[in-house]
Amino acid sequence: MSTDKKHDYSKRSIEAHKKYGGKVAITSKMPLDSKDDLSLAYTPGVAQPCLEIAEDVSKAYDYTWKKNTVAVVSDGSAVLGLGNIGPEASLPVMEGKAVLFKKFANIDAVPVVLASQDTEEIIQAIKMIAPTYGGINLEDISAPRCFKIEERLKEELSIPVMHDDQHGTAVVTLAGLMNSLKLTGKSFKELKVVINGAGAAGIAIINLLRHVGVEVVIMCDSRGIIHRNRKDLSPIKQKMAAVTNINNMEGGLEDAIKDSDVFIGVSVPGVLNGEMIKSMNRDPIIFAMSNPIPEIMPEEAHKAGARIVATGRSDFSNQINNVLAFPGIFRGLLDARSSEITTEMYVAAAKAIADQVADLDEEHIIPSAFDENVAPAVAKAVSDLANKNK
Amino acid sequence: MSTDKKHDYSKRSIEAHKKYGGKVAITSKMPLDSKDDLSLAYTPGVAQPCLEIAEDVSKAYDYTWKKNTVAVVSDGSAVLGLGNIGPEASLPVMEGKAVLFKKFANIDAVPVVLASQDTEEIIQAIKMIAPTYGGINLEDISAPRCFKIEERLKEELSIPVMHDDQHGTAVVTLAGLMNSLKLTGKSFKELKVVINGAGAAGIAIINLLRHVGVEVVIMCDSRGIIHRNRKDLSPIKQKMAAVTNINNMEGGLEDAIKDSDVFIGVSVPGVLNGEMIKSMNRDPIIFAMSNPIPEIMPEEAHKAGARIVATGRSDFSNQINNVLAFPGIFRGLLDARSSEITTEMYVAAAKAIADQVADLDEEHIIPSAFDENVAPAVAKAVSDLANKNK
Repeated sequence: MSTDKKHDYSKRSIEAHKKYGGKVAITSKMPLDSKDDLSLAYTPGVAQPCLEIAEDVSKAYDYTWKKNTVAVVSDGSAVLGLGNIGPEASLPVMEGKAVLFKKFANIDAVPVVLASQDTEEIIQAIKMIAPTYGGINLEDISAPRCFKIEERLKEELSIPVMHDDQHGTAVVTLAGLMNSLKLTGKSFKELKVVINGAGAAGIAIINLLRHVGVEVVIMCDSRGIIHRNRKDLSPIKQKMAAVTNINNMEGGLEDAIKDSDVFIGVSVPGVLNGEMIKSMNRDPIIFAMSNPIPEIMPEEAHKAGARIVATGRSDFSNQINNVLAFPGIFRGLLDARSSEITTEMYVAAAKAIADQVADLDEEHIIPSAFDENVAPAVAKAVSDLANKNK
Repeated sequence: MSTDKKHDYSKRSIEAHKKYGGKVAITSKMPLDSKDDLSLAYTPGVAQPCLEIAEDVSKAYDYTWKKNTVAVVSDGSAVLGLGNIGPEASLPVMEGKAVLFKKFANIDAVPVVLASQDTEEIIQAIKMIAPTYGGINLEDISAPRCFKIEERLKEELSIPVMHDDQHGTAVVTLAGLMNSLKLTGKSFKELKVVINGAGAAGIAIINLLRHVGVEVVIMCDSRGIIHRNRKDLSPIKQKMAAVTNINNMEGGLEDAIKDSDVFIGVSVPGVLNGEMIKSMNRDPIIFAMSNPIPEIMPEEAHKAGARIVATGRSDFSNQINNVLAFPGIFRGLLDARSSEITTEMYVAAAKAIADQVADLDEEHIIPSAFDENVAPAVAKAVSDLANKNK
């Protein structure tokens, strides 16, 4: 993006946020114009729904906003590309997410930003407020804390919990890959995939790819290939070393990428070059998702022989955008009153997204972020599975 | 209230809650119809407000919903007259409160119900979510935990915290009493006040009355007068024994009420009778606020000589209703971006409510709960004080 254009967005965004005073508000769904209205919405009428819920807690889904409500929770530790900016400063992003939930899935998403970045304190706080909502969308929480927080909440809560930076990205990546394989005539089983970037998104993508049958995956971090002889690996990277890189290859990205079919970048600008793409297997598939500046610019990638190029940006074709996944996923979970979210649901969501592309070609492997048919299709796929699991 | 009418409200309330699916929803304030809209509300534009808040946290009030947002927090331990019904079952009440906040003060009030009734866990959870909001309205939390929770949060948070069951009730009671004294020509200093009921509301009323100069107060609980020789007093009642009942009188309500000027009931139906009223000083003032059935019915009270009778009910004159206080109080606090709420503000709010009564007489000591001029007047009184305190 040009500096001018970015500057323009910044200035206009400040003006808009000031003018509207934030992006989300609370509205009333029930009329409150007369004493009679008040007697139904509040005392004495409200006692009856209260009593029925006290007797059968599932009735909260009938009589309260719980049925349509997702908390968008962050500690502000890993916000967009901005890093650890704290809770208040992350609020504009959580409100933006809430606006997207509303637009694409008519979900009442409620921003919640937390005053601590301590893992146990975050888990405890979310458990405390959970009865209020039908689901929890974790957002912009830094690795490795995000893994433990999500894992524990999934175990300990009876409503679905999803860390969008992991699974939203993984689902849309998988959708794009499903369609890419249709074009290149390859199967997941035969692929060699290189993932550059060992953060939350990279790890979630690997887990999802392995689930759909990808056997050969090599993960790289900023120091090169993750292998079992490295002494500098965090516990989560040690886990990755154990399940990827079956030949325990050592070296850098330039070594990993040789003869591979797919490059997935969730890392930093400019780390991929044309020479590397030239060393790949036939029909290279490049997902360069570093934002706003990708690992390689699409033009350069195509020049080096890439058949399919996707990025995180809206001004190139094939934008890998989480908004294709999270609204529909939670819509489906809420519709089914699901108590959990499963890997099968992520795969079903990816397939639903992929299937929404009508005229599939190299420049159209993924629907537009503004395609309003995507969320309902994803919702149906997820709720069908959730209902089957009951 | 007749059983038929109550039954009718219950049935129609259930239908309405089901039909609307709860009472509050989230809406977007910024348009999101084009890629350009998305670039302002979300990436890349949203980065700029985030960065500015990270540098100066007070700017959250300029760019987010914080400036207009109050959390309505409950653990479901003391809900209306229903008792300890738990978090989910209290949600309809919190949503009802949110609807009232919106209607009377255009505040975005956000229901939050908590999974634990442990005092320390509640304090910790509210501290964790506090950066999200401009204020905290504690609701329907049972005594004595409500006192410690409010006290600690007031000390430890930099946004205003108010337990409405205490202070909302106390403010409106004080407003009604201010106007009652105009009619009877008495002053706070010369009053003898009896308060029946030693729960959250009763204690808050005593504290507020003492603050405005009432010197003679006797508090009764279900076992009679609270005095310093009683061995069965909880710590909070011991505190009350120390600051009320200066002559350390013993006995029952019938002893306390002799020669008193004001009876305030926050207790149970039917505990007051005509004989007791006849034993009071001239121009008895009776606030019988047990709901829905008062300590004495207005007709019986008047027959026994009561000059002014107020209740909690909308079908009698002089309804003491919290809705006259909490929307305006929080509107004023948010408008001033106040970090705290003080007893002086409660008194100013009471005076603003009392002053809204244009044609003061025995049947009109308090404005109607639907008078839309009250909240703005209360807001102005509170924000003026808050701005002066800065």
